[in-house]
Amino acid sequence: MAGLRRLPGIGEKSATRLAFFLLSAPEALVHELADAIVRVKKEIVLCEECFDLAPASPCSICSDPARDAALLCVVEEPADLEAIERSRRFAGRYHVLGGALSPIDGIGPQELRIAALEARVQRGGVREVVLATNPTAEGDATAHLIAERLRQTGIRMTRIACGMPLGGDLEYADHVTVGRSLDNRRVLE
Amino acid sequence: MAGLRRLPGIGEKSATRLAFFLLSAPEALVHELADAIVRVKKEIVLCEECFDLAPASPCSICSDPARDAALLCVVEEPADLEAIERSRRFAGRYHVLGGALSPIDGIGPQELRIAALEARVQRGGVREVVLATNPTAEGDATAHLIAERLRQTGIRMTRIACGMPLGGDLEYADHVTVGRSLDNRRVLE
Repeated sequence: MAGLRRLPGIGEKSATRLAFFLLSAPEALVHELADAIVRVKKEIVLCEECFDLAPASPCSICSDPARDAALLCVVEEPADLEAIERSRRFAGRYHVLGGALSPIDGIGPQELRIAALEARVQRGGVREVVLATNPTAEGDATAHLIAERLRQTGIRMTRIACGMPLGGDLEYADHVTVGRSLDNRRVLE
Repeated sequence: MAGLRRLPGIGEKSATRLAFFLLSAPEALVHELADAIVRVKKEIVLCEECFDLAPASPCSICSDPARDAALLCVVEEPADLEAIERSRRFAGRYHVLGGALSPIDGIGPQELRIAALEARVQRGGVREVVLATNPTAEGDATAHLIAERLRQTGIRMTRIACGMPLGGDLEYADHVTVGRSLDNRRVLE
């Protein structure tokens, strides 16, 4: 049970529930679970190009010739990359930073894969860098730092739009989001 | 109690609770409430310019010379106008439609103040129309119709940005919002 409690998001109660489940589960299922846990560690690697978690390096996106290698989307975590893939609106490649700047948690530029991003951009062939870190204080600071660092390359740098979420109502949106949706309004052709 | 139940959002239970509250409340308070209800009807009017609810017509925004009369923001309801005012990012004037297109509820262009908007724009002096209807199916359809109707005036038409709400996380955002935030990405200077 102490072992289960070391998992993220699992506290005393969840650990107890899991332990009782495992005690009453058929032996085959328990072995299957244990195998799956070991297999994750053995079979999932970090893609050396984009730093996404994948079964092989380079990952299926980095090795897909149909994806635009000149369009690079920078995200904080593999889960953000998955979210963008689900939107089916991006056909370029990715760079996973491994988090966002957070001085309070001791996460500075050194803890993120920013140097690797710079090296990747300097190797050439990149036309646009889309900064898709989250629209939070940490994500904005990270996007700002990367924009600063890559400024001298002259490459087009873009930031994902901040505005009203789809299906939202101005009346119930926070005033900063309403303000951003006005500031970032686009011209209808 | 039957009277109270005719108020929007007040069902059987709320009406009963309100009725019992009024029965046990001091007489002075009951009169004060009744007066306030009558006063709202008597003292709040529709601004003849923008159709907002206000103590006078024209309202304080329409009669404020410091506000840009050439920048017109189209909203569905007075509550949306209030939301934009709270953002403090808009210094123009408004046009309240009184809702959004909704064929299922029998709301067509005739039920909204679209003809009044056209007349207002045709009187001249408007440089930009900001379509700030909500980013819902109804709001988008309404914005689209207005853009069509005003196209021949040649006036700049803009739409509020749809994207990630402030503080949001790509991982938890719906995939259409993530897609819009990519489509509407802006260039960092």
